[in-house]
Amino acid sequence: MYQKSLLSRFISSTTKTRTAHQARRKMDWNIHNIPADQPTPSVIVSTELAEANIKRMQDYCNAHGLRLRPHTKTHKSLWAAQLQMKAGAVGLTVAKVGEAEVMSHVCRDIFIAYPAIGAHRLSRLMELAKRISVSVGIDSIAAASALQSAAQNAGVQVGVLVDIDVGFHRTGVQDRIKTLELCTFVAAQPNLAFRGLMCFPGHILPHADSQTWSAYEAALKSIVEELAQRGLSVEAVSGGSTPTAMESHKNTALNEIRPGTYVYNDLNEVRLGVCDLDQVAARVLATVVSKPEPNKVVIDAGSKTLSSDRNAALPDSGFGYLPDFPEAKVVRLSEEHGEIVFSDADVASGRVPEVGDRLWLIPNHICVCINLQNQFFLHDGQTLSVLPVDARGLLV
Amino acid sequence: MYQKSLLSRFISSTTKTRTAHQARRKMDWNIHNIPADQPTPSVIVSTELAEANIKRMQDYCNAHGLRLRPHTKTHKSLWAAQLQMKAGAVGLTVAKVGEAEVMSHVCRDIFIAYPAIGAHRLSRLMELAKRISVSVGIDSIAAASALQSAAQNAGVQVGVLVDIDVGFHRTGVQDRIKTLELCTFVAAQPNLAFRGLMCFPGHILPHADSQTWSAYEAALKSIVEELAQRGLSVEAVSGGSTPTAMESHKNTALNEIRPGTYVYNDLNEVRLGVCDLDQVAARVLATVVSKPEPNKVVIDAGSKTLSSDRNAALPDSGFGYLPDFPEAKVVRLSEEHGEIVFSDADVASGRVPEVGDRLWLIPNHICVCINLQNQFFLHDGQTLSVLPVDARGLLV
Repeated sequence: MYQKSLLSRFISSTTKTRTAHQARRKMDWNIHNIPADQPTPSVIVSTELAEANIKRMQDYCNAHGLRLRPHTKTHKSLWAAQLQMKAGAVGLTVAKVGEAEVMSHVCRDIFIAYPAIGAHRLSRLMELAKRISVSVGIDSIAAASALQSAAQNAGVQVGVLVDIDVGFHRTGVQDRIKTLELCTFVAAQPNLAFRGLMCFPGHILPHADSQTWSAYEAALKSIVEELAQRGLSVEAVSGGSTPTAMESHKNTALNEIRPGTYVYNDLNEVRLGVCDLDQVAARVLATVVSKPEPNKVVIDAGSKTLSSDRNAALPDSGFGYLPDFPEAKVVRLSEEHGEIVFSDADVASGRVPEVGDRLWLIPNHICVCINLQNQFFLHDGQTLSVLPVDARGLLV
Repeated sequence: MYQKSLLSRFISSTTKTRTAHQARRKMDWNIHNIPADQPTPSVIVSTELAEANIKRMQDYCNAHGLRLRPHTKTHKSLWAAQLQMKAGAVGLTVAKVGEAEVMSHVCRDIFIAYPAIGAHRLSRLMELAKRISVSVGIDSIAAASALQSAAQNAGVQVGVLVDIDVGFHRTGVQDRIKTLELCTFVAAQPNLAFRGLMCFPGHILPHADSQTWSAYEAALKSIVEELAQRGLSVEAVSGGSTPTAMESHKNTALNEIRPGTYVYNDLNEVRLGVCDLDQVAARVLATVVSKPEPNKVVIDAGSKTLSSDRNAALPDSGFGYLPDFPEAKVVRLSEEHGEIVFSDADVASGRVPEVGDRLWLIPNHICVCINLQNQFFLHDGQTLSVLPVDARGLLV
C-alpha cells in the first residue's frame, strides 16, 4: 500500500534537485554523461521533455475548450500526475481502483475508466469514495446495479459515465437503445450520479479522413441529443487515447479527453506519426553483456524491462529502437536478454558496441515498460534523481 | 530491498496454514470454492500440484545422477525456492544479482546464469560474494576481466561457468578455440574459480531426434576433453530449460540442469507436449467486467497481468487458455482488458459467462505473468493464503 511519507520524501528530493540547477541544461541524451555506476537496465525520463509534452497537450486543450483528464496508466507516478494537475488538468484518469488509491494523494477528482466489478474491488472503491470524488465508466446494467448496491451500503455517491463503443470493439455499449436504457437506469439510482458518456476511439488512426471523424462525432451527438430529450443532462463526453488526442476538436461532441502516453511518448507514437523522436521523454538505458557475433550484441534489457509488446504500426520492426543506431534492430527478447543485430554499415565503420558499452533504447510501448520498473530516474539535463513508480503493478 | 522479517513472517504463516489442514484436499480448481471477495486478477498456485512438479523433477534428476539447480525466475518466491531446496536441489539459479540477493536468504550456493557486467551490478555482486558462494555464467574475456578486477578489489572469490552457445544463438561462445581461450583465461585469474560450462539448449524441442541430442552431447564432450588435456577440471556442465529437462540423460556430458518453468508449468509447456493441463499448478483468476456481444466477454486481466507473450508453439492461438471453455480464445489484450470470444456451441448452450462471473486462465508464459504480480495466492485444496513475489521486478 502506498505510504504518504514516501510521497513527501520524494517530492522534496525532486524539488531540491531542481532548485540546485536553476539554469537547467537542454537534454542531449549524451550517454557519456550518465554516471558509470547508474544501474541498468533503467528508465530515464527527461524532465524538460516530459514538461514540454505536458504543456503541449494542455495548450491544445485550452485552445479548443477541452478538459484534459490525463490517464495516469503511462507514468504511474505522483510526480508526473502533479505536473499534469499544475498545468491545468481537471482531474486524473486511472484504470484500476488501486491506481486511484495512489493518485488520490495528489488529486481529489478521479475517473476510473474501467468497470468496477467484483466484491473486493467495489469494497476498496467505496472506501475511496468516502474521501474523494470518484467516477466510474461502465457498460452494463449488471455493473450499474452492483455499483449502486455497494454505494448504498457504504452511504456514498459515485459518479458514472456510460461507456459507448465507437468502433474499437473492446468494452462499451454497442447500440443506441441499450445505451439509452443504461443511462436512464443509472440516472434513476439514488447513489449513482449520471455524469455522461465515455468512449475509447482506439480504432481511429492519426490523420484519419473526415468521414471517420464525422461518424465518430455523430455517434456521440445523437446519444447526447436523445438523452437531453429525456431530461438527462450530459456533463461530460470523454474521449481518450494519445494518437488522436490533438485532433479531438474534429469531434465537437467531446468536451474532455483522457490521453496517457503523450506525457513520455514512445515508438508507437513515433511510428504512428504523432510525435518526433526528440519528443520522446523516456528512454531505457541498457548495457551490452555479450557480443556473440561481430554484428550482434545482447543487452541486459529483455521482455522483463521492455515487455514483449510489438510495435502497433510495424509489428515486425523489432522490440524497440536505438536512436544512436537507426539501422539496428532488436530482433528477439527473452526475459532478461535483448538481442540486437547491427547493419553492415555499422560493422564496417567499427561502431558496433562492445561488452560493457551502454545503449539507449526507445521502447515500443512505454506504459507497459514503466509498469515493469520499481523506480525510474529523472534527468534534468545535468543530474539524475530516482523516483518510485508509485502505482506500478496495481492490478485490482 | 528484501526484509528478513518479511521472510520469517511469511514462512510461519505458510507453516501455520499447512498444520491447520493436515488432511489436505485434492485440488479441483472449483471456482465456486474461491471466496467471493478474492481480489481479481490474481495468480493462484496449487500447493499440491507445485509440490508434485518439484518432486517429479527431483526424482528424475536423482534417477539419472543429475544435480538440479532450479532457475527461480519462474516463481521468484522464497516459499517455492525452499521447497526446491528441501526436495534435494544442490543450489539455485537466478538471472540477475537482485534476484540472487533475495534468494540468498534461503540458499548459500547461487549461480547467476547471466554475465555480470556494469559497475553497479558488479558492486552488488561482490557484496553478495562476501556472504555466500556465487558463480556467474560469462562468455567473454571482457566479462572475465571485469569480474576479476571487481573480485580482487573486494577481496572475494567468484565461481565462473563459461557459457557455450549450443545452437540457440543468444549468448554463449560460438567456437571451440574461443571457448578454450576463455576457460584458460578464467582459470588463470586469481580471484575467479573456473567451475565448468553452462549452456541453454532453447533451440531443442521436446522429443527431438537422436541426431540433435548427439550433436548437443558432442559439442560439450569435446570441450570437456580438450580442457582435461590442458589440465583444467570441469566440475559442472550445466544445461537448462524445462522443455527438454527430463530428456537431459540423453546428453551424458551434462551433470547439472537448471529448469525453471516446471515448478508451475504453463500453456507453453502444455502445447509443447511437456506436461498435461492437470500438471499446471498456477492459474489466473479473472472477473468478467463487460459482455459487449453474446459470444464475447472482457475480463479484468490484460497484458499487465498475463504479459503479451504469445504461445511458443502456436503464436496465433491467443493469450492464454480457459480450461473450463476449451473452445474459447483470448483474442486480444490491452493493458487491463482481456477479450475472449466463445464458440457457437458455448453460446448455444448458454454457458458464456456474464458480467461478474469469474474465470480461470492458464497463461502462455507463467514466468512473465508472475513477475507482473506483487503477490500470489497459495491454495492447499481448501484455503487460500497470500505470499509476496519476493524477487519480482529485479532487473539489475
